[in-house]
Amino acid sequence: MASYNVAVIVGSLRKGSYNRMMAHALAGLAPPSLKLEIVEIGDLPLYNPDEDTDPPAAWTAFRQRIKAADAVLFVTPEYNRSVPAALKNAIDIGSRPYGGSSWDGKPAAIVSVSPGAIGGFGANHHLRQSLVFLNMPILQQPEAYIGGAANLFDSEGKLTNPGTAEFLKKFMQAFATMIGKVHAPAA
Amino acid sequence: MASYNVAVIVGSLRKGSYNRMMAHALAGLAPPSLKLEIVEIGDLPLYNPDEDTDPPAAWTAFRQRIKAADAVLFVTPEYNRSVPAALKNAIDIGSRPYGGSSWDGKPAAIVSVSPGAIGGFGANHHLRQSLVFLNMPILQQPEAYIGGAANLFDSEGKLTNPGTAEFLKKFMQAFATMIGKVHAPAA
Amino acid sequence: MASYNVAVIVGSLRKGSYNRMMAHALAGLAPPSLKLEIVEIGDLPLYNPDEDTDPPAAWTAFRQRIKAADAVLFVTPEYNRSVPAALKNAIDIGSRPYGGSSWDGKPAAIVSVSPGAIGGFGANHHLRQSLVFLNMPILQQPEAYIGGAANLFDSEGKLTNPGTAEFLKKFMQAFATMIGKVHAPAA
Amino acid sequence: MASYNVAVIVGSLRKGSYNRMMAHALAGLAPPSLKLEIVEIGDLPLYNPDEDTDPPAAWTAFRQRIKAADAVLFVTPEYNRSVPAALKNAIDIGSRPYGGSSWDGKPAAIVSVSPGAIGGFGANHHLRQSLVFLNMPILQQPEAYIGGAANLFDSEGKLTNPGTAEFLKKFMQAFATMIGKVHAPAA
Repeated sequence: MASYNVAVIVGSLRKGSYNRMMAHALAGLAPPSLKLEIVEIGDLPLYNPDEDTDPPAAWTAFRQRIKAADAVLFVTPEYNRSVPAALKNAIDIGSRPYGGSSWDGKPAAIVSVSPGAIGGFGANHHLRQSLVFLNMPILQQPEAYIGGAANLFDSEGKLTNPGTAEFLKKFMQAFATMIGKVHAPAA
Repeated sequence: MASYNVAVIVGSLRKGSYNRMMAHALAGLAPPSLKLEIVEIGDLPLYNPDEDTDPPAAWTAFRQRIKAADAVLFVTPEYNRSVPAALKNAIDIGSRPYGGSSWDGKPAAIVSVSPGAIGGFGANHHLRQSLVFLNMPILQQPEAYIGGAANLFDSEGKLTNPGTAEFLKKFMQAFATMIGKVHAPAA
Repeated sequence: MASYNVAVIVGSLRKGSYNRMMAHALAGLAPPSLKLEIVEIGDLPLYNPDEDTDPPAAWTAFRQRIKAADAVLFVTPEYNRSVPAALKNAIDIGSRPYGGSSWDGKPAAIVSVSPGAIGGFGANHHLRQSLVFLNMPILQQPEAYIGGAANLFDSEGKLTNPGTAEFLKKFMQAFATMIGKVHAPAA
Repeated sequence: MASYNVAVIVGSLRKGSYNRMMAHALAGLAPPSLKLEIVEIGDLPLYNPDEDTDPPAAWTAFRQRIKAADAVLFVTPEYNRSVPAALKNAIDIGSRPYGGSSWDGKPAAIVSVSPGAIGGFGANHHLRQSLVFLNMPILQQPEAYIGGAANLFDSEGKLTNPGTAEFLKKFMQAFATMIGKVHAPAA
């Protein structure tokens, strides 16, 4: 049976980030066919196209990590009703240089996580608009807006809310099915 | 080889609509595996959930037409930086009653057409946000923002711009490939 | 002291609509300088530009009602992650004919109301995008995403949640202040 | 007569950026009541909330510059159908720490500039969504989507297209009028 490497991008740089806790929880909830691994984005210098004539080593390493992945899972908070700068920076770096986007064609899914009630709706959909341009087939249903994040994890960062865990297990199963379809040979 | 019925929804109700001309052009440019047919939306009464206890015949007929399709192609102008009311009405009618959405799971693509330079970007992406909820896998690339519509067709409504025709032929081929993947059995 | 007529547009056509209950509650919570009146949109024929050569009487009456208002308050649910068709229809009708938009320059505010947790975020922001084109100065803060609507009203449709009432009172006060600034003579 | 300091944020870090050229052109086209000055964002470390206990000096200096401004003008390209990471980073840094946003209440306008036909529509409207949260009254009309940027400037970076210059002069005049209204005492 096919197995897929999934690059996980965590949109928050906070050490105690709920999104990082969530990324670890998702790795445990995913079906065995998916191997999740976090690709770090906190040390990527701010994207400036001028530097692509001699790109920072961190950009090149990040691009190679994304290119090597079969799929991408974004786990992100919302900052100012949109995607955090750190995540947009990773998106921009991975998308260049022109003609060599690292994201091209890779199936993607989004889990947005916030302490408030709304669950990162604004970040979730702004990110989707970027993924259109990046040519990344995107999981439509279920949508994962995870609000009230402060109440979902225990003091060690484990996801303890059973309803959320059950939902996310189905989410990851749906993502696995979709990845299989995208990577299947054309009919 | 598999063949697919594609329901075409034209977002403008104007008789001389560029979007209707475009829909006809797309039918001619599509690969032989796709059978395009316009499903009319101009006579659908405005959606009101109260009427779903005894729905108008036009709603029921529309829902059946969408359910019978293998895929959906939206061809739409932009009204006030968003989807025209007539198109949103068709979306809303097709989405109900709860638990019985006609759109569920059907692969979709969007061509937005406008007389101005921007090519309906606002309508295109607002529609994409609805398709997330409707669980419709969506063609990401190429994006089709067709501006300057007044110069693309002859006096009989035929698409005469060869660059646009070439682009749209590739667009329809990409849509056919994507439909095949969505309808393929799970790997 | 200046007094302003505020046209209230309710995005839901349901008889038992939470949004209609909310519109009535807002009329009671508004400061005395604001006179709120619902302008009905349920009987407006679906917008088709061809009919603007001889527009339906309902369109003309609606446009006159909007033109007579000093400001506009939208109270709306979310349908399929966007604005309900009935509301978009009112927007489109009011925006035409070209050069004679009824909305032009009128200050606006949005309250989005839903039974779910998210409170109509998608509808709220899609509507904002249309208001840019319509040249309507828009209240930025506070944002009003009212979720869990089923628990806010009593059996007679009165808003009984005191926290929500307090918040909306401040919201209406902020709207009144903003209307005053927009209608003030240029400095 | 009142005079206002306008902080100009340029969304591109490229040395030969069309957006930087545009920012200089706008300073020349603005009415005398507006004093435009670019606030640089290229050296701001990537936003991480953990560092706000002891913020980098560049963050603090940036926040002070924004707080000292009467209004903000954003001039930005579109990266991946959204706001460039460098601009989002400035937004995020200026918005914190909680309760002390530098942006709060300042009137804003957006000029989006791109080499392609669409003129940065996606970046323009994603930025608008952030400005709602940041409580920045925003200029609605005219909208400024400046496409075909490569043909608007001479080899020394001067704006040479007279139609664009005329349009932007009106744009800046409308912004000046709106700033005056926002800063006027309540009626």
